[in-house]
Amino acid sequence: MKTRCIPLMVGMLALAGSAIAADGQWQALPETAPAPSDNPTTEAKVTLGKMLFFDPRFSSTGSISCFSCHNVTEGGDDHRPTSIGVHGQVGGRNAPTVWNAAFNSAQFWDGRAPSLEEQAKGPPVNAIEMGMKDLDATVGRIKKIPGYQAHFEAAFGKGDVVNMDNAAKAIAAYERTLITPNSAYDRYVKGDKKAMTEQQVRGMDTFAKTGCTACHSGPAFNGSQNMPMGQGFFMKFPTFPGSVYDTQYRLLEDQGRAAVTNKPEDKQMYRVQTLRNLAYTAPYFHNGSLKSLDEAVKVMAKTQLNKDLKDDEVKDIVAFLDALNGEFPKQTLPQLPPTPGDLITEN
Amino acid sequence: MKTRCIPLMVGMLALAGSAIAADGQWQALPETAPAPSDNPTTEAKVTLGKMLFFDPRFSSTGSISCFSCHNVTEGGDDHRPTSIGVHGQVGGRNAPTVWNAAFNSAQFWDGRAPSLEEQAKGPPVNAIEMGMKDLDATVGRIKKIPGYQAHFEAAFGKGDVVNMDNAAKAIAAYERTLITPNSAYDRYVKGDKKAMTEQQVRGMDTFAKTGCTACHSGPAFNGSQNMPMGQGFFMKFPTFPGSVYDTQYRLLEDQGRAAVTNKPEDKQMYRVQTLRNLAYTAPYFHNGSLKSLDEAVKVMAKTQLNKDLKDDEVKDIVAFLDALNGEFPKQTLPQLPPTPGDLITEN
Repeated sequence: MKTRCIPLMVGMLALAGSAIAADGQWQALPETAPAPSDNPTTEAKVTLGKMLFFDPRFSSTGSISCFSCHNVTEGGDDHRPTSIGVHGQVGGRNAPTVWNAAFNSAQFWDGRAPSLEEQAKGPPVNAIEMGMKDLDATVGRIKKIPGYQAHFEAAFGKGDVVNMDNAAKAIAAYERTLITPNSAYDRYVKGDKKAMTEQQVRGMDTFAKTGCTACHSGPAFNGSQNMPMGQGFFMKFPTFPGSVYDTQYRLLEDQGRAAVTNKPEDKQMYRVQTLRNLAYTAPYFHNGSLKSLDEAVKVMAKTQLNKDLKDDEVKDIVAFLDALNGEFPKQTLPQLPPTPGDLITEN
Repeated sequence: MKTRCIPLMVGMLALAGSAIAADGQWQALPETAPAPSDNPTTEAKVTLGKMLFFDPRFSSTGSISCFSCHNVTEGGDDHRPTSIGVHGQVGGRNAPTVWNAAFNSAQFWDGRAPSLEEQAKGPPVNAIEMGMKDLDATVGRIKKIPGYQAHFEAAFGKGDVVNMDNAAKAIAAYERTLITPNSAYDRYVKGDKKAMTEQQVRGMDTFAKTGCTACHSGPAFNGSQNMPMGQGFFMKFPTFPGSVYDTQYRLLEDQGRAAVTNKPEDKQMYRVQTLRNLAYTAPYFHNGSLKSLDEAVKVMAKTQLNKDLKDDEVKDIVAFLDALNGEFPKQTLPQLPPTPGDLITEN
C-alpha cells in the first residue's frame, strides 16, 4: 500500500517538437508534467481535482463522471470502442487515455482543446456524455454540494471561488499527476541496456526506420502537433474509398479535425495519440475499430506511410510497444462531500 | 496519504440479536466484520474482490460495476432515488449502502440474499442492473481477461479457480473491509462523554424512548431480522391507503419482501437499514422518496410506531443520527488487468 508522492510544483519543461530518433535521441518519460504559468500544480488543487474527476453528480443523471470513460483503474479509457454517456447513449469516438495526457500538445481526437483546462469543460455539457444543459448548470451542481466550498477555498483562496474555471484548473492539476514512468523503454534509454529484450530493441529500430517517429515523437510518443491519420494513404491512393480501410475500419466516416476547422486539408486529421500503455487501451483508433496491436501497427504503416510491414516486423514493433507500458502510480480513492437530499438528477 | 491496514483474519463475532438500549447497552461499531467459516478474509481475497468490485467489464455494456451504484467515494450508494443500470435503465429501489453491509443479517431491501456472497451474484444478471445473460456469461467475461487468473490463484490456490463462487467470495471479503468506525457515537459509548453534544445525547434518549431501537438495534443500528416497514401503521390504520404515506411517499407501491415470499404478512416488509452515515445516503427509504432526515424520522415514527414526534424531538434525533457518521477508511484504487481487444460488449 505504498503511495506515490504528488509533485507539488512542476517546472515548464520543453517537451514538444523534439522528434525521437531523428537525431538519435530517445527520451524517457518525465516524472512530472509541465503546468501552465496560470495554473501551477498544488496539492490542494490535485486533491480537489481528483474529487471532481470521480464525482458523477455533475452529469444530468448523476451517473457519469470523468472517471466513467477515463477509468484510472484501467488504461485511463473505458475498454469500449466508443463510450457510453447519460441515458445509455453511445458516443462517436474512442475515449482517449487520460494517462500522460498532460504531455499532449492539444486535447480531444480533433485537438479542439488547447489544454487540459479547456478539455475539462467539454464533456459536462456534451448531450451524449454528461448531458448538463450548460456550464452554469454544472457549477450549480457543485455549489449545491456544500462540502465543496472548503476544498475550493483551500485550492484557490477564500471567497467566491466555486466556478468552472477553477473546477477545470483543479481537474487539470489532478490529471497532470497521471503519469506512468519507469517502463522497460524508459529504463533502457536511461542506461539499463538489459531492460528491453533483443526483440524489443529490434522493434525500436524497425519502428524508427519505418518512419513511425515522424509523428509519434517525444517522450510520450505523441508528437508535437496535429498529424494526419489516413491522409498519407488517402492522398497517394485515390482508390482508398472502398478499400478495407474504408469498409472494415471506417476511416473515412469521421471527418476528424475538419469537423472543427471546416478545412478540406484537415479531413481525417487527428491529434497524434500517445503509444504508452497500449496494452491497456484496446480497442484502437478514433473509432475503436481495431482490436489488436498487430492489426493497428499494420494499418498505421499502410495508411500513413504506405508501407507493407512483414509479420516479423509487426511482431518486433508490437514487442517494442509493450516496452512502453509504464507503472501506474498508486492512488488513494477520494472521499466526496455528502449529497443534499434535494439535489435533483434526471432519470 | 495514510492507508488503513486490512484486517487479515476476523473472528466470528456474535453481533445479531442484541437490542440496543433494551438493557441499557449501546454498542460501538467493531473495527472488523465477522466472516463465514467457509470464507475467511485474507489480503489476497480483498485485493481481488476490490478489483472485481470496481470492474465494469462484467456488465453487458462494459459500463456498470458494483462501484457504479455502491460508490465508495460517497456513502456507498449512488445519491439517486433509484439506480441506473445498463442502457440507461432506471431501477425500482434505492441502492443500499455497502458501508457496514457486512453487519447486515441479510442483503437486499427484501432480504432475499442471506449473505454478502449470495448478494454479489444478483446484480450481474439483473437485466436492468448489469444485464449479463447469466452467471456463466459473467464468469466468461472474467476468464476472457487473462490477468485475473493469477489473482484468483493467489486468493484460492492453483488451478481452475476462476468461477462465480470464488468471485463472490472475493467481493464479499472486500466488502467486509468497508467499515466506518470511530463516529462521535462510538467514541461516546466507549467512554468519551464529550464526544457527543448535549443535543445528541438527548436525541439518543428520545430515539430509544420513541421505540426506534426495537428495530434499529445492534452496533450498526440495522436490527437482527426482517422488520416491518409501514406494517405498524398499516395494521392499525386501515385508512393508510390514500394517505400522504401512500400518495406522496408511495409506501404501498412496492410489495417489499412479499414479492419474494408471496406471503401477505410480508407486504411492505424490508430488511432494517443501518442508520450509520445517513448524512451521506440521501435520499431515503427503499424508493428514495424522502429527501431529508427530518422528514424520514417523522415518517418512520408515524408509520412504524404511530407516534407524532414534535419538531424539537425530530431535531434531537437527527442530531443523534449525525453522531453515527463514522470515518471512511482510506483506500488505494485498484489497478485492473488489461482488456483483450476482442472482449465484446454491447452498445
